[in-house]
Amino acid sequence: MLLPLLIGLCSADWNILNQRKKAVSGISLKNYCESWRINVEVNNIRGFEVVPQECIEYIGKYMTSSQYKADCQRAVEECQLYLSSFCTLKGDGKDAWIFDVDDTLISTVPYFKKHGFGGHKLNVTSLEEWMEKSKAPALDHTLTLFHEIKEKGFNIFLISTRRESLRDATVDNLIKEGYHGWSSLVLRGLEDENKNVQNYKAEARKRLVKDGYRIWGIIGDQWSSFDGTPAAKRTFKLPNSLYYIS
Amino acid sequence: MLLPLLIGLCSADWNILNQRKKAVSGISLKNYCESWRINVEVNNIRGFEVVPQECIEYIGKYMTSSQYKADCQRAVEECQLYLSSFCTLKGDGKDAWIFDVDDTLISTVPYFKKHGFGGHKLNVTSLEEWMEKSKAPALDHTLTLFHEIKEKGFNIFLISTRRESLRDATVDNLIKEGYHGWSSLVLRGLEDENKNVQNYKAEARKRLVKDGYRIWGIIGDQWSSFDGTPAAKRTFKLPNSLYYIS
Repeated sequence: MLLPLLIGLCSADWNILNQRKKAVSGISLKNYCESWRINVEVNNIRGFEVVPQECIEYIGKYMTSSQYKADCQRAVEECQLYLSSFCTLKGDGKDAWIFDVDDTLISTVPYFKKHGFGGHKLNVTSLEEWMEKSKAPALDHTLTLFHEIKEKGFNIFLISTRRESLRDATVDNLIKEGYHGWSSLVLRGLEDENKNVQNYKAEARKRLVKDGYRIWGIIGDQWSSFDGTPAAKRTFKLPNSLYYIS
Repeated sequence: MLLPLLIGLCSADWNILNQRKKAVSGISLKNYCESWRINVEVNNIRGFEVVPQECIEYIGKYMTSSQYKADCQRAVEECQLYLSSFCTLKGDGKDAWIFDVDDTLISTVPYFKKHGFGGHKLNVTSLEEWMEKSKAPALDHTLTLFHEIKEKGFNIFLISTRRESLRDATVDNLIKEGYHGWSSLVLRGLEDENKNVQNYKAEARKRLVKDGYRIWGIIGDQWSSFDGTPAAKRTFKLPNSLYYIS
């Protein structure tokens, strides 16, 4: 999952942030930044355009840490538990699973590492130039999960906010990193440019349901990949505090 | 929010947990327990009956830490931002706000501190005996928020999984801790005993909507307070990794 429409519902205005910081008496910068991060993860903080300046280092450290990897791994393990315990497929070719692309299958962390770790307002042109190079590395645990899900007989749908113009680069990147065998890669066409991402993704799910698919699960790093109707039976949230897509 | 129906969808069986722990190569116990906690918070881990034995100390430390307080404070601040920026009340007496009770308005942490910090399977009788004493302390930031919401002209509804038999003790406790002026305190009657909590709470919201209320927000510590329809316009999740209510 990734890209445009990083709309600032709650503006990350420095004054507000600084007022807040002062209002939190007796807590350390580490406490403050960790609170910011956890409140992003549970979707209390929405629509941020940049990581607060004072937390860029903290978030950069987290997103490149063994903790981040362990958090992703645990999410994948819970997904595996769900698959083995609660998913009895009908086997009629209509059992579907949805994945986000960015920061779910492949990582944009190397890009953000070179571009201020979410502390600058996103430069879409620059990010898309990087995506054109097809060098985003796989998230290892999701790669394993992807193939397990495929082997179980699910039809896999990749629903991303990347634009259609990035189709070839995206497919190249995914294949190079070991992903293959998905049923469809849904990217944003011109007609989707002005939709908010939650609606764009919900519409993609609506088409699947109309075609008779049962959506057993979604794994993604943004709440806009899960919210709205039709809903999946289960959703699995991967951590990502570098950007927010609404 | 709190109490029974701590149904183990994903059994917290020691063997599975130990296998998992071993499978996570190269990560520390701290990483492991933090991953457990964050995956509980984002609702990837559901239906746990006990905190994993090896993480009891870690979770106990977190739930009594300045980090927990800062995390709660930040959630409340985001709620205040939403109230001031996005809530234009109609002022017809039909603007509603919903609060959980346990670990939202008042804290059960003192109980769990004396009873193994979520590491023992919940003893409902013992917890209810403690609740009868009406000694649960307020969560300070929620107390401030409660009165701000009341002053803005919302009708406040408290929807809890506590049983009707605890009504007097609950009201006593809330008043003693500074809460007053709510419109209704919804508790679980005998007819609700066999409902899962998500349905019980959604039904309470359905009654509000039928009575013409607009539900602007819910603040709670369990996902079962938010999920299902009708949904609130916004929800705010407070941290709680001591128990899971489904």
